[in-house]
Amino acid sequence: VTVSALYQRYLEHLGGLHALSSALSLLGWDQETFMPPRGIENRAATRSHLAGLAHDGTVDPAFGELLDELAASGLDDVRAASVRETRRDRDRSVKVPRKLVTELSRVTAMAQQAWVTARKNDDWATFAPLLTQVVDLRRQEAEAVGYEAEPYDALLDQYEPDMRTAVLEPVFAELRPALVAMTAEIADRQNDVAADVLLGEWPVPAQEKLSRRLLDAMGFDFEAGRLDTSAHPFTSGASPLDIRLTTAYDPADPAKGIYSTIHEGGHGLYEQGLPTEHSGTPLGEACGLGMHESQSRSWENQVGRSRAFMDFLLPHIVDLFPERAVGLTADSLFAALNVVHPSLIRIDADEVTYNLHIALRFELERALFRGEIDVAELPDLWREHMTSDLGVTPTGDRDGVLQDIHWSFGAFGYFPTYTLGNLYAATLFRAAGDSLGDLDTMMARGDFSPLLGWMRDNVHVHGRRWSADELCRRATGRGLNCDDFLNHLRAKFGVS
Amino acid sequence: VTVSALYQRYLEHLGGLHALSSALSLLGWDQETFMPPRGIENRAATRSHLAGLAHDGTVDPAFGELLDELAASGLDDVRAASVRETRRDRDRSVKVPRKLVTELSRVTAMAQQAWVTARKNDDWATFAPLLTQVVDLRRQEAEAVGYEAEPYDALLDQYEPDMRTAVLEPVFAELRPALVAMTAEIADRQNDVAADVLLGEWPVPAQEKLSRRLLDAMGFDFEAGRLDTSAHPFTSGASPLDIRLTTAYDPADPAKGIYSTIHEGGHGLYEQGLPTEHSGTPLGEACGLGMHESQSRSWENQVGRSRAFMDFLLPHIVDLFPERAVGLTADSLFAALNVVHPSLIRIDADEVTYNLHIALRFELERALFRGEIDVAELPDLWREHMTSDLGVTPTGDRDGVLQDIHWSFGAFGYFPTYTLGNLYAATLFRAAGDSLGDLDTMMARGDFSPLLGWMRDNVHVHGRRWSADELCRRATGRGLNCDDFLNHLRAKFGVS
Repeated sequence: VTVSALYQRYLEHLGGLHALSSALSLLGWDQETFMPPRGIENRAATRSHLAGLAHDGTVDPAFGELLDELAASGLDDVRAASVRETRRDRDRSVKVPRKLVTELSRVTAMAQQAWVTARKNDDWATFAPLLTQVVDLRRQEAEAVGYEAEPYDALLDQYEPDMRTAVLEPVFAELRPALVAMTAEIADRQNDVAADVLLGEWPVPAQEKLSRRLLDAMGFDFEAGRLDTSAHPFTSGASPLDIRLTTAYDPADPAKGIYSTIHEGGHGLYEQGLPTEHSGTPLGEACGLGMHESQSRSWENQVGRSRAFMDFLLPHIVDLFPERAVGLTADSLFAALNVVHPSLIRIDADEVTYNLHIALRFELERALFRGEIDVAELPDLWREHMTSDLGVTPTGDRDGVLQDIHWSFGAFGYFPTYTLGNLYAATLFRAAGDSLGDLDTMMARGDFSPLLGWMRDNVHVHGRRWSADELCRRATGRGLNCDDFLNHLRAKFGVS
Repeated sequence: VTVSALYQRYLEHLGGLHALSSALSLLGWDQETFMPPRGIENRAATRSHLAGLAHDGTVDPAFGELLDELAASGLDDVRAASVRETRRDRDRSVKVPRKLVTELSRVTAMAQQAWVTARKNDDWATFAPLLTQVVDLRRQEAEAVGYEAEPYDALLDQYEPDMRTAVLEPVFAELRPALVAMTAEIADRQNDVAADVLLGEWPVPAQEKLSRRLLDAMGFDFEAGRLDTSAHPFTSGASPLDIRLTTAYDPADPAKGIYSTIHEGGHGLYEQGLPTEHSGTPLGEACGLGMHESQSRSWENQVGRSRAFMDFLLPHIVDLFPERAVGLTADSLFAALNVVHPSLIRIDADEVTYNLHIALRFELERALFRGEIDVAELPDLWREHMTSDLGVTPTGDRDGVLQDIHWSFGAFGYFPTYTLGNLYAATLFRAAGDSLGDLDTMMARGDFSPLLGWMRDNVHVHGRRWSADELCRRATGRGLNCDDFLNHLRAKFGVS
């Protein structure tokens, strides 16, 4: 057989797997948006069966042989990258025994349920035994997958290909003291009541209109996507031409809806910008969660929280919320939406303190998977870190170690991608500005198409062809670094 | 292996097929309700792949052997019925060559598109060649499936197990003259302007509220289902605990929303009443399309268009549409919602003339598959039948042979299930009344739970255990017949 016939077989096999992942994507989206509550049991069975079919199709030995043949067949760079990434994914699936997958799925389902109750009742003791099991299973998974330096690397690699503990350590070592110092300096000079200009009622129907206007302006294609609501905002998609965003509204706080929408909109623009001709293959997929988060974060923070953006946002607020807009100026809006304030809850954190929350989680996860600490020690260590880094101490575990759902479903190694996203966002945005000129004037006018065009050309279109670090380097001349992010904060908040 | 181990393997295999059909159900529902337009291509590919997996799982020879073993193993009646129906479905799938399935799928996709344009432009000539291909492929399918008397039987059997042309012929032969005579008699005495009391604007948000109230009163469980809108109302469901209804509203005509909702609500109540312990097996499925339609029709016509129902409906109209309700009485509402009037379009037809539209389609389909007529003759024959039976003649094919989408996707043998539904509805409703006593008083009060309970006990809970005719006989003492339906019309409209 010719190479091109082999490659055709490869594409057909991936097409079948893509059909399953498209169906799984819709089943997941519907479960969070429209599914009636009593449908959950059948939904879980349906998802589990389809996930099993996808696993079988992935580990299929004949598919493995096909990939080996292709890898040795002298493909051009683009096709070679596709096969390389498919093999990476398949290798991981082959290495993890099916029994371990099933057990993880069973235990994390229980742990998620237990977490909901434990958080509500501030009851760490009932959650801890299940979390211990989850950590133990994930440690087994890391051993099965293999690693060079330490088990935690095998978990990081799942969310951010090739990311290693040793790469993250200097990053957090640089960020932490810089952010702690910056937070203190900003707090000293900041107006504590800046956010009070947003007090009052913000009717949800008008918030919905605003969300649509924001996404329209950003360039989100509603013919190829939707916006709905769910308890926790997310983005999912079966293809670049069918991207589902969700957001959430708080009638007492417009920032929640605005920034949830812009954040998910950033994810959605990345997904809509992936090359459709490569749909269902790695070249049609986003390059890791860090780069994905760079897209949501650059729109949310570099764009949506900029002073220039306020000139665009204010007239919409005047139009949609006339009672709230009385006396509001672009400057007071900018101040209100950029209050820096150490707080207990990660998802409410501002742009400056956010990464301190991630640094804490990274330290605890690394220590856990090195066996340096036990699950039982997490609540106390959490309190210590919060006190030393952020200067605030949770009174209960509800606002401490129990605040995130992620560990309950085994997502260790995942949180660091949020910080990677913030760092890549700053570097990409700086380079876009260097290339496009006066971004502030464009943003103030609501003309976001040059920025989107730059991201399309330099990030979206490449899919998983390169690692995140190399993609960033090719786009900006610079790989992962803290400088661009810290400089962005220094310039924005006028600190040293 | 023991029989119970064999049966367990059978249930597991069906569980996998049910997961696929659950996913397909959601993919189909979403396509008609929420999918962004540009998602269609990936959606079609996804559905096609999953349908292929379901087909493979069904025709799997090992599954066939398992079914043979089970059939010979002396199962109890209930399990034997389950295996019998599964074999029936599988036999049909095995007999139709995959190539024919693919070809039908390809040609009907083209024919559906062509139909949309042809209907819009009143252009039969562009549609006819594709319809000829569809008829030819369906004839090949009938030959592949096999039949005793004539090819059309193999098509009927797909929608209504064991239904035959020879059974339907005397039914339509009895209905046709009776309905023609009845229509004339009613038209003579009916107030032509009865419907004018409904003129004016009916705001859609209030219509939505009314639909929810109606479904609530009927006993539809919104914890196990939803109501949305779509261009053509339908009911779909992945399990009795996740049933999706759609309806459609016309701001100038409340009847459209009311009866679409009640009709789909009847389908939905059947689905919600199927035994969850048998989900994914024939015992958890509805017993043919005729019985399904009996549930939607009995709620729509026997309940929703009854004089008693108007006493329940009127206060809701007064509450939700105060401007429209001025001067409206239960009697004038009853008259307005029961105007009998021969018309060109099936979906707009009243309770009396409706089955004349079906009789016409049955005659033409039977003649087509007997080879007595060609596709090219359909438009003229349509006009002739309409003129002779209903006394109205379509000026264009748009209001004639092109009005229904069904033939474009090959649904020959399907229309008769609508008439079967009307007949079973009348017989079941009569028996329910005999058993429950004064149904009118209950309906006037909005107390529909005794009726739903009777349908649950006598129809829903049995799934596909028996044929529709036997199910009806066991529930009512009487099988398929025209008397109950004709007597219902005679009593309601006071004709001979």
